[in-house]
Amino acid sequence: MKKNVLIIGFGFLGTNIAESLRREYNIIVFSKDIFSVQGEYKTYQGDFTKKDDLEMVFKHNTIDLVVHALSTTIPSNNDATFDVRSNLLGTIQLLDFMKYYNVPKIVFLSSGGTIYGRIHNDLPVKESYETDPVCSYGITKLAIEKYIALYHFLYHIDYLILRISNPYGEFHVSDEQGFINVSLKKLIRKEKIIVWGNGDVVRDYIYIKDCSSMIHELIKNNISNQILNIGSGHGYSLNEILAVIQNTVGKCTVEYKPARNFDIPRIVLDTQKLRSHIDVKLTPLAEGIRHTYEWLKRQA
Amino acid sequence: MKKNVLIIGFGFLGTNIAESLRREYNIIVFSKDIFSVQGEYKTYQGDFTKKDDLEMVFKHNTIDLVVHALSTTIPSNNDATFDVRSNLLGTIQLLDFMKYYNVPKIVFLSSGGTIYGRIHNDLPVKESYETDPVCSYGITKLAIEKYIALYHFLYHIDYLILRISNPYGEFHVSDEQGFINVSLKKLIRKEKIIVWGNGDVVRDYIYIKDCSSMIHELIKNNISNQILNIGSGHGYSLNEILAVIQNTVGKCTVEYKPARNFDIPRIVLDTQKLRSHIDVKLTPLAEGIRHTYEWLKRQA
Repeated sequence: MKKNVLIIGFGFLGTNIAESLRREYNIIVFSKDIFSVQGEYKTYQGDFTKKDDLEMVFKHNTIDLVVHALSTTIPSNNDATFDVRSNLLGTIQLLDFMKYYNVPKIVFLSSGGTIYGRIHNDLPVKESYETDPVCSYGITKLAIEKYIALYHFLYHIDYLILRISNPYGEFHVSDEQGFINVSLKKLIRKEKIIVWGNGDVVRDYIYIKDCSSMIHELIKNNISNQILNIGSGHGYSLNEILAVIQNTVGKCTVEYKPARNFDIPRIVLDTQKLRSHIDVKLTPLAEGIRHTYEWLKRQA
Repeated sequence: MKKNVLIIGFGFLGTNIAESLRREYNIIVFSKDIFSVQGEYKTYQGDFTKKDDLEMVFKHNTIDLVVHALSTTIPSNNDATFDVRSNLLGTIQLLDFMKYYNVPKIVFLSSGGTIYGRIHNDLPVKESYETDPVCSYGITKLAIEKYIALYHFLYHIDYLILRISNPYGEFHVSDEQGFINVSLKKLIRKEKIIVWGNGDVVRDYIYIKDCSSMIHELIKNNISNQILNIGSGHGYSLNEILAVIQNTVGKCTVEYKPARNFDIPRIVLDTQKLRSHIDVKLTPLAEGIRHTYEWLKRQA
């Protein structure tokens, strides 16, 4: 019998992970917006922070694995209290349900881009590096990681914590977060692309289909009780990304605005630990950007 | 003119710090229980988590330094949600007031005993070691440390984070937390002393007057934007402590109960970083225990 995988949060990551897992697992989705659920999954609409909404799923299904892909916020420092209330308290409530309903494992999608903060060691960053986030979003992700490890220690709930770098690709809907997707969208709409700072900021971009196959492999091989970076291991500056976009899909206009204080200057993830568990195949950047562009054009 | 120091939380630590600072600073106290305020301080009674209660203090006073010595909980895993709601969200609210009312500095009393978790490196623990608390109390303390560092980064509020080991001594009132004080109290009441586990658990005990003079020195020397361990740097097992108590103040009866999973086996703090900033003078254990015993007998 197929295992029941509950995917919480059906945004960019949740949708792609479901796409990747759907043939081998029975997918159940918990999401705020039912209409965003693209496939034919058993679906629960609800507010993650509401006890009754979330408990319904565990009452009605025997869940073998939770994939926690929900964030109520994006990286910023606008409202730390809301970050804690919704993301952290919501996740503690989830863990309490997992304990009560004997759900054996959680895969948590953490943030490779914000959790390390301004790196004082050499790049790329290893999982063992210090974690000093410079945004509230990153602090709540870190606190969630610690609570997940605690629930493993106390109640033997297995976990896999994945610190994901900057994914781009299909099923991305945000107009704010995700430089490659937002830029391609602006290019299609013939709008100006906004760059915060001078474009020197370096990120580790990963094509979402590479990312979700890796997550699929890690789940299939039952890798547990680890914190793993998921990224390409390569860094590109915003200006380099813009150059690849121009070479691959066409001309764009760019406006440079003052840098934001929560954007760390450089981050590239070390993927040695990831590669010790699974084979990592990476789609070349230009190819991933072309796929993304074509998908976005079909949506426009 | 004397500087205004706001002490939040007037339990064991808050009371002793006020005692140590009172001659050189103008002390203002924010506390749940007015009746526990021993000295002649300007006092605000209130609930730390209530916005209006806390804001009153900043509206009516120009605060030069906040000493945050309040915990709504003790180390346990009874109610993670309450830990987060009261301690973490309460502290974020405090930091928001400090930002709004331009308070330049916070001294936060963190937990050397719980924040490191089950140590994988050598003892004594340095401040740079990994932090993997095995209790919710420790995770909220860690998240508070990260938010304090974030508010320094974003809004230039200076800080001093002090990871305190296991203090014992005068003005300790808890009947649950603090092995030396609780044991002496039981001895005076001729009750059995409870030991969780076989008594091999090792802790770093510090006499509270040593601890509060160190905090006084660090404040006076304006040591800022650091995380520092405060402890004796020496480890004693519970059985060794009981032996010192028996030799110093008299015979006690002991009952051994099964170990608790959130009690880490051994913790001793490295105090090199502390000693690089101030002179550290330690009261011998037997002498500290005798002072504590005499104070407790006067209260009985």
